[in-house]
Amino acid sequence: VRRQAVIDMGSNSFRLVVYGHEKGSWWALTDEIREPVRVSEGMGREGELKPEPMDRAVRTAAVFAAFCEASGIEEVDAVATSAIREASNRAELLEAISEQTGLEVRVISGEEEARYGWLAMANSTTVDDGYGVEIGGGSAQLMRIRGRQLTDACSLPLGAVRLSEAFLPDEKAPGKARKAVRRHVAGRLGAVEWWPTKGGRLVGIGGTIRNLAAAAGKQLDTPDMDVQGFVLTREALEELIEALADKPASKRGSIPGIKPDRGDVILGGTIALATMMDEGGFKAIEVSEAGLREGIFFECLLEDAEPPLFGDVRRESVINLAHRYRTDDVHVGHVAKLSLELFDGLGEAGLHKQGNAERELLWAACELHDIGVAIDYDDHHHHSAYLILNSGLPGYSSREQVLIALVARYHRKGDPDASSLGDLAERGDKGRVRLLSGIIRLAEQLERSRDQSVASVDVSAQNGALILRPNVKSADASVPIWAARRSADLLAEAVGRKVEIDA
Amino acid sequence: VRRQAVIDMGSNSFRLVVYGHEKGSWWALTDEIREPVRVSEGMGREGELKPEPMDRAVRTAAVFAAFCEASGIEEVDAVATSAIREASNRAELLEAISEQTGLEVRVISGEEEARYGWLAMANSTTVDDGYGVEIGGGSAQLMRIRGRQLTDACSLPLGAVRLSEAFLPDEKAPGKARKAVRRHVAGRLGAVEWWPTKGGRLVGIGGTIRNLAAAAGKQLDTPDMDVQGFVLTREALEELIEALADKPASKRGSIPGIKPDRGDVILGGTIALATMMDEGGFKAIEVSEAGLREGIFFECLLEDAEPPLFGDVRRESVINLAHRYRTDDVHVGHVAKLSLELFDGLGEAGLHKQGNAERELLWAACELHDIGVAIDYDDHHHHSAYLILNSGLPGYSSREQVLIALVARYHRKGDPDASSLGDLAERGDKGRVRLLSGIIRLAEQLERSRDQSVASVDVSAQNGALILRPNVKSADASVPIWAARRSADLLAEAVGRKVEIDA
Repeated sequence: VRRQAVIDMGSNSFRLVVYGHEKGSWWALTDEIREPVRVSEGMGREGELKPEPMDRAVRTAAVFAAFCEASGIEEVDAVATSAIREASNRAELLEAISEQTGLEVRVISGEEEARYGWLAMANSTTVDDGYGVEIGGGSAQLMRIRGRQLTDACSLPLGAVRLSEAFLPDEKAPGKARKAVRRHVAGRLGAVEWWPTKGGRLVGIGGTIRNLAAAAGKQLDTPDMDVQGFVLTREALEELIEALADKPASKRGSIPGIKPDRGDVILGGTIALATMMDEGGFKAIEVSEAGLREGIFFECLLEDAEPPLFGDVRRESVINLAHRYRTDDVHVGHVAKLSLELFDGLGEAGLHKQGNAERELLWAACELHDIGVAIDYDDHHHHSAYLILNSGLPGYSSREQVLIALVARYHRKGDPDASSLGDLAERGDKGRVRLLSGIIRLAEQLERSRDQSVASVDVSAQNGALILRPNVKSADASVPIWAARRSADLLAEAVGRKVEIDA
Repeated sequence: VRRQAVIDMGSNSFRLVVYGHEKGSWWALTDEIREPVRVSEGMGREGELKPEPMDRAVRTAAVFAAFCEASGIEEVDAVATSAIREASNRAELLEAISEQTGLEVRVISGEEEARYGWLAMANSTTVDDGYGVEIGGGSAQLMRIRGRQLTDACSLPLGAVRLSEAFLPDEKAPGKARKAVRRHVAGRLGAVEWWPTKGGRLVGIGGTIRNLAAAAGKQLDTPDMDVQGFVLTREALEELIEALADKPASKRGSIPGIKPDRGDVILGGTIALATMMDEGGFKAIEVSEAGLREGIFFECLLEDAEPPLFGDVRRESVINLAHRYRTDDVHVGHVAKLSLELFDGLGEAGLHKQGNAERELLWAACELHDIGVAIDYDDHHHHSAYLILNSGLPGYSSREQVLIALVARYHRKGDPDASSLGDLAERGDKGRVRLLSGIIRLAEQLERSRDQSVASVDVSAQNGALILRPNVKSADASVPIWAARRSADLLAEAVGRKVEIDA
């Protein structure tokens, strides 16, 4: 396992993040220290870092450097963004950090910041053509993406801390002050000629947006899960603005989903986001948990690719999750193969009307159905669902992640129940989960002895029955045949046919 | 990883269980196939296995043997209990199995069955002096344990299937029939001269008792967890008898916690258990999930010990769980050391009145606090709690397991909330969880750089403040000191003192 640390010195907080990765297998965040340094505090218009915040910055940098030293992490990339970048006295700070901690901090430009933001988005969502927004503490980055490439980008001084300090310095946030933020942001956006007016896909990253998504999610009836893939609507955002403005600044951090030490500066960033959406004609924003730090990490992880992008984000995130829990590639791959044969055969026989979207969810559920065994064999179907919901699957929406988790949950035992989708549910989900669960439940049994003795399965419908013909590779397929016959009930019910395993 | 299969051919179901283990590190159940063969069906008083059940038995044995073959498991121990043991035509069945599957089935005597049950109990509970009961399908085993040794044992024909078929053959279970079961069981117990009349500790194992504990647990407000360590009271058992008898036999399996295919035979076993408790003067029974199969496995796992018993069950189960999730022994061991130093020091300074029980819970939480990192670094405190509750800690009661999970949960982030204990709560738990969480939260930070640079910590109380003096081993302990100062609030609040880290 290779370990790499990224130190991100933002206006609001400094963060040390450690990523572990095994080449070609998996990657994951393995450690994190966050300190609300608020280095930009009191910078005001003079643009000078004040002694107190500088002192906090140096001390925090020293701790981070000592941590990397003590835990033997040699690859450390420390970057500074907006607040430090724009400070007239930044050299003084960088020198103090270098002298006292040995850390050589890389001050990145607004364009570089936007580029890392794009790398984060393009590697954690399926956005092909669309727009991106990252709201930081000091600056906000806007991006235009075409064919997964970054075609335009800019960095504007519209960060959450900056706007809040400039326009909303008091406990109260009167309507007048909020309007002033809107006017200011709209004015700046006016200069960005490529920012659209008619919407499109919009992806958001950064702590402010993550917190807003978490807060909006708490208002919905959905399973406990990451905000990765959450869709924040403009209406939900408006409700959050009202809720935040109703509270004094010092209490805004008590709203569930909002981090306490971000409460006093979140409103400025929230209004900025709303204005960007309004000006751009966006009705919703897709949220990704990846950000600047992941962008920097992806550039290293994918060093062999130019640009450093995953070929297929959804596929990568499923495989990465499977590998993190050391799943048996050959076995789950074979369950996936048999499941897709069943899915396709049933479709051709006119026994379901599901399409490619469901086919891909089934594939993902197959690859992940056994990851819960890493927790415990007993109830491992429940554990697989827990891991899927809690680890997140970049590239999939919240709804898709819950569907994958449900199919993994019902790959064995129990009567499929899609009600945990809650507000994410769409028409037909009950039948969808039942069908996909019925398929994987049977396919898993056709591979019960984990030896691929059933090489493939043919599907046909005859006289009102569904006939499955396993093609047996090796001599003894008695276990899979026996097991499959015991596990056909759910599929039979889902397609309304008797199922016969014709061995 | 070594794998060993145990095949258990009981009266109600046949089960293949696979255990994986790494010598001196961990063991876990890694696969399981259960088939409700009901081999004793229709045996009646003639004691002859009928052709249909025999055929099911042979086919199931063939599948189990093929599974072991296909998955390359060479160590297979197949045992048969009561139904087959007592059948007049058992030789015929064993021969058919041997011929058609190659499995040589070991028919174990009632004494051997009781011995394995004792090994399961003595290795999964803290019972030192007490009694044990195992209710199987055909027979029930009673045990007397003194100084962890099995001093008396007997096997009686009082299994759940046998009693239900003999006394409760219909859909309804009239009071008269239930009384007849009681009389019959009491009569048999009368011959067991060492069965007590004044109670003591009683441990129960086997599927019937596991199901009853699960059903009783569903009636309580407790977190979702295993039945390992659950205490089933005589009153709760009586309520279950009423609930079961109120339903027709074919519907009893619909009671949450009762397995559907066990529903029609569980009432006989339930009344037997109630009678055994009444005759013995027991008010409650501690439930273990371990049973015959674990007994057989433990004999192999602990082959170097005579008798094959863990030295300290509680310690073993904590270490086993930690190792299953590849925790960093040195780091968690050091967090435990520092935590116990704080606990002891605070006690000596008169800042808490907790005793050895809490000290041990703190130790267990320390060893397990990071296991959730195996799931995901983000929210790993939540994941650690989830793993503890779902994997179970043999030797600890349900209440103790929830307390350990809570302390692991609050080793970082959030305000300790003990309300999830629900019906398991006792007076003072809120403060107990707060104190232990406050200690581990600080101790973990004193070992934040995972390099044991803070070798130990001295505790003293001065002028109303709590002074902690870290003894620094290596040069740079800046990370732990920095981190500990940020994480002292909870402990300060728990002991009502200001905390100073005097470095």
